[in-house]
Amino acid sequence: MFSKSFVFLLIVLVFETKCDKEKVFDSSDCDLGSLVEEIASYDKRVKKIIDYTLSGPFKGKTYDELAKFVDKFGARPSGTLDLEQSIDYMIDLFHNEGLHEVITEEVEVPLWERGAEVLTMYEPRKKKMEILGLGKSVKTPLNGLTAEVVVISNFTQLEETPDEKIKGKIVLYVPIFTTYSETVVYRTQGAAKASAKGAVASLVRSIAPFSIDSPHTGSQTYSDGVEPIPAAAITLEDADLITRLYNRGETVKVQLIMYSTLETRVSRNTLVDLKGKESPEKLVIVSGHIDSWDVGQGAMDDGGGIFVSWAAPVILNRLNLIPRRTIRAILWTAEELGLIGVHAYKKAHEDESHNINFIMESDEGTFAPLGLVANGNHKTRCIVAEVLKLFQSINASTLIESDSPGSDISIFTGTGIPGASLHNDNGQYFWFHHTEGDTMNVETTENLDLGAAFWTAVAYIIADLSIDIPR
Amino acid sequence: MFSKSFVFLLIVLVFETKCDKEKVFDSSDCDLGSLVEEIASYDKRVKKIIDYTLSGPFKGKTYDELAKFVDKFGARPSGTLDLEQSIDYMIDLFHNEGLHEVITEEVEVPLWERGAEVLTMYEPRKKKMEILGLGKSVKTPLNGLTAEVVVISNFTQLEETPDEKIKGKIVLYVPIFTTYSETVVYRTQGAAKASAKGAVASLVRSIAPFSIDSPHTGSQTYSDGVEPIPAAAITLEDADLITRLYNRGETVKVQLIMYSTLETRVSRNTLVDLKGKESPEKLVIVSGHIDSWDVGQGAMDDGGGIFVSWAAPVILNRLNLIPRRTIRAILWTAEELGLIGVHAYKKAHEDESHNINFIMESDEGTFAPLGLVANGNHKTRCIVAEVLKLFQSINASTLIESDSPGSDISIFTGTGIPGASLHNDNGQYFWFHHTEGDTMNVETTENLDLGAAFWTAVAYIIADLSIDIPR
Repeated sequence: MFSKSFVFLLIVLVFETKCDKEKVFDSSDCDLGSLVEEIASYDKRVKKIIDYTLSGPFKGKTYDELAKFVDKFGARPSGTLDLEQSIDYMIDLFHNEGLHEVITEEVEVPLWERGAEVLTMYEPRKKKMEILGLGKSVKTPLNGLTAEVVVISNFTQLEETPDEKIKGKIVLYVPIFTTYSETVVYRTQGAAKASAKGAVASLVRSIAPFSIDSPHTGSQTYSDGVEPIPAAAITLEDADLITRLYNRGETVKVQLIMYSTLETRVSRNTLVDLKGKESPEKLVIVSGHIDSWDVGQGAMDDGGGIFVSWAAPVILNRLNLIPRRTIRAILWTAEELGLIGVHAYKKAHEDESHNINFIMESDEGTFAPLGLVANGNHKTRCIVAEVLKLFQSINASTLIESDSPGSDISIFTGTGIPGASLHNDNGQYFWFHHTEGDTMNVETTENLDLGAAFWTAVAYIIADLSIDIPR
Repeated sequence: MFSKSFVFLLIVLVFETKCDKEKVFDSSDCDLGSLVEEIASYDKRVKKIIDYTLSGPFKGKTYDELAKFVDKFGARPSGTLDLEQSIDYMIDLFHNEGLHEVITEEVEVPLWERGAEVLTMYEPRKKKMEILGLGKSVKTPLNGLTAEVVVISNFTQLEETPDEKIKGKIVLYVPIFTTYSETVVYRTQGAAKASAKGAVASLVRSIAPFSIDSPHTGSQTYSDGVEPIPAAAITLEDADLITRLYNRGETVKVQLIMYSTLETRVSRNTLVDLKGKESPEKLVIVSGHIDSWDVGQGAMDDGGGIFVSWAAPVILNRLNLIPRRTIRAILWTAEELGLIGVHAYKKAHEDESHNINFIMESDEGTFAPLGLVANGNHKTRCIVAEVLKLFQSINASTLIESDSPGSDISIFTGTGIPGASLHNDNGQYFWFHHTEGDTMNVETTENLDLGAAFWTAVAYIIADLSIDIPR
């Protein structure tokens, strides 16, 4: 019997480790027969989409619309009015493009609102430190918590430290970033484990390879039977400063003040169909999440993702390229606090899940597209690899294999439904991820044009092929 | 007749444009005769210094001492007790190494202390924006200033804008960073020029090529006969957000609250002599400034500079390599608010300025050393280029020519006294400069070992050569 918290923890774990075990697909033993010729025959339509987007009437449009959107609403946290108004705005944007098959589906979501957050080191000297509370963290007493810091490098060290050395202290985890999936466990599970050892609060070195004094927030989860304690991320710089002081034998004492509220609200998933002309019940889904963290503008995470997914039906509609199957653009809600929107969608659409031909998601940046990260059986991967050959002119022909690509869509791809996430040149993604630096300054017109063209053309071909993508 | 402000403005201009007109020196027509052989004969001593610092007892020492220093004191703004205590600490550090020829010289310096600084955009939507007031900025009224923003790209555009469009508004300068010297004028002169047109405050897009929502402070100066108005830097991200909103025809209204105090205090330049064994009156100066901005730790600007300059006499003393001339390490005070320490030194030591054989400064980062940026006549440059040939093993043999290298020392080098600043791999210098990101995270053990070895060996050779560096 699993508790609700444990299920949530599992969700978070699946969600946060999605990038593991990826390798470039080797298509040398693919044998697709006449399908090769069929796929090659899409070359003119691909070129038409690329030209329209990179040098035609759509040039710069994805960037401009994304900028107008994120400039107007800024951050769009789950449960806020800003998020709901931004959903209404997107609906209008689809309508304005003549796309009227738009529905929304309600979802109960958490509204975790950050209040004042202040971290001050008092010993060995006074220094105010930037922090960001982690998602759903409990607050401190109004006067804050003042306690000594214990620096912990990893969970093994925590386990091996006697409880009395942790009790009443604030644990600071200082894992050095390797990969996100490997390091993020100190953010997602740190507070629960520290509390189990008697800590009064949990701090974590931001899960990032680079910083300019820029803390990174993100989700975390408490465990059943363990007192929930305040949890926050601090900057790489301050974490390393405290570590150096601590390693020199100094007593490091800090005051932590955090305030927040947690309520429940109703949000909406947004579904937009460009109906297929032959098998409208069959779906190729393109998607991203419209909610964001409450810092920055959510331009990268995941404004870019929703705007390339907006562009796909819009460009196809403008070019009157209507595929055999339906293209459904979905703007998931409440991804950041635990894939809540997509779970509601999956439940509500259980009866049509056999109709999902292919499910796509862009949620790891919209830097220059390089190809796809896809799951599926061997034949599926052969087909996707063959489709990607049509994108050599824009250097987006790489197929990376993964068992459960994507973040939201991993709950489909993880069960064998074929799908893909956007593989893009996102080496700096975690520099900005979940920080105040997630703004339009991370985006470029060129990359969004490339991403929109690629996303649109891939979705079109897969939705139009003579055969379904095999499961 | 020049007013005091005007002189200060000139100082700032000289200081801020120091990087202009640099090119790699061409040594093909150098003819140094027997000096070539003499310089080459230092190869064993150079190797000894490099080995001692990179793999011997001094390995890691420069980084460790710098870390202990900046971790203990943090930022060290001009006029503060922290700065004075950090000076005392450095004196002890020299004494502990058996260097007792240490004196300090008092200097009147400004103490500009930043209070609360809050910038909130109210229209077209509410957003709190990070700011950093600029040096010596006046404060706003207690309730702040609420006004519309006028976005200005350059001074020509400002001049061409009718006064009535500026009057009562807040000017935001949004120059795109090209080079520091080219772009920084909007920070140093922006408020004065905006005030002359009737603006009530002046904001500037941070003078930086990159940001993670990280504002950059720095000096600025008012003009005589013009009302001083509050002046602050905002982040690239927010400047670009406001610019996009403004260019879409939106009215952008902000509230700016700034508080600060300006007083006068006494600080000290610190002079440490490793006396020359033949001509102790003749000086080779190595230097950096001990004050910093009030953000970050001042580890890069200019902690690294003072610690490689600390290392030079320390390493030579440890290795008993005593040159003919005196090596003087100087820790300048109050560089950031206008080269105040060095001006006082120049005045106090006017009678021995003919004895400055060569003056060196590290104040543009201590990333991997690449060589020197030097002034001087042709023969001087030939000598320096010949000396640099001894550093091919550590890739630090490049000589860049400049008419007035350095920041503090430019008031010497600008008048023809030969000198050099550290040329280093500082392409990311302005990512961190004058921000909260100027911390130990920018520094590495390897780079500081390389920098200390290079700085020490160069100073030694020049101080020991059989001939003076020609003027």
